[in-house]
Amino acid sequence: MTSQPPDPAPATRGDRELRADARRNRERVLRTAQQLFATDGLGVSLDEIARRAGVGPGTVHRHFPAKEALYLAVAIDQIRQLVAEAETLTAAEDPEALYSLLSRMMANGAENVAVKSALVAAEFDLRTAAPDVAADLTRHVADLLERAHAASAVRADVTADEVMALVAGAFAAIRHAGAETSRDRAAHIAQLILDGLRPR
Amino acid sequence: MTSQPPDPAPATRGDRELRADARRNRERVLRTAQQLFATDGLGVSLDEIARRAGVGPGTVHRHFPAKEALYLAVAIDQIRQLVAEAETLTAAEDPEALYSLLSRMMANGAENVAVKSALVAAEFDLRTAAPDVAADLTRHVADLLERAHAASAVRADVTADEVMALVAGAFAAIRHAGAETSRDRAAHIAQLILDGLRPR
Repeated sequence: MTSQPPDPAPATRGDRELRADARRNRERVLRTAQQLFATDGLGVSLDEIARRAGVGPGTVHRHFPAKEALYLAVAIDQIRQLVAEAETLTAAEDPEALYSLLSRMMANGAENVAVKSALVAAEFDLRTAAPDVAADLTRHVADLLERAHAASAVRADVTADEVMALVAGAFAAIRHAGAETSRDRAAHIAQLILDGLRPR
Repeated sequence: MTSQPPDPAPATRGDRELRADARRNRERVLRTAQQLFATDGLGVSLDEIARRAGVGPGTVHRHFPAKEALYLAVAIDQIRQLVAEAETLTAAEDPEALYSLLSRMMANGAENVAVKSALVAAEFDLRTAAPDVAADLTRHVADLLERAHAASAVRADVTADEVMALVAGAFAAIRHAGAETSRDRAAHIAQLILDGLRPR
């Protein structure tokens, strides 16, 4: 992901609309790709993704010349969505917010296991490829944990590092049980792990 | 691991002593190797393992011509020890036995993470390489879970497959936290996961 060069001239209204259009298209491509990867596996073609997203094939090939670039963009987009959910949860002042966010993170990881495995195989590390967005999510988890501690909604002896480790543990457990494609089974395993965080 | 050909003649007392000696030596090599792999990593030489086990270097090289064979033997030996502990726990009629066994399995996995990673990298699967001993351990977990269910010492909605998945999840969580070499930190992560199994 290189950043765009600055515009040589102030944007006209037409330029801005074009850019907003491009952004929406890119987002539609990423969400469609994420869904197709989760349901059909990573073998789905760029052309099929374009067709299902309702954009021209050129749009997808231009943005994502290599499939790995698309995997990475999908994974980063997923974390951005989790960060957006975390912001909503943080605003709501609910001590249960920690559990809601962690459930979403665990479900998300289980759904996107194929993309994540491909990135690991290609030696991409999200914490290196997208340090800001990964750090944002970690910070939100730490904030919500602090609130849950204050509300005695979580056991006193659990740290933010342990919570992040348990999210990774949930992915592994779900994979071990072969439950990646069963939302209910994956959710139950996540629930078992999250219940271990409750005060006793 | 090929099995030994049967003896051509009935064993004399001397033969039996020799064989018992050989078995003890092999066991000493495996336990020493396990400890050295855990503390010093997989780079430790066969000669060093022999020296620390107090056997001749030929004994180690003869039993384990390739390092992978030693990794596999160490991993299988570890499962055998867990099976032995499971048998003791099963005999004790204690509903907490399930938790004791799972704690030991999680701690053991964290200690032996280097050996296990090497086996995975070499595409060894313990469930294939040593199906009997792996199945024994799974059966013991299922038995102890059934007893814990009967004693209401475990939540009613957890299955044996989920319990095995949580053991794999604990390894991953401990690795994610970088806690493989800290017994206390690894044990705490294991505890968080095990507490999720308690009835609420």
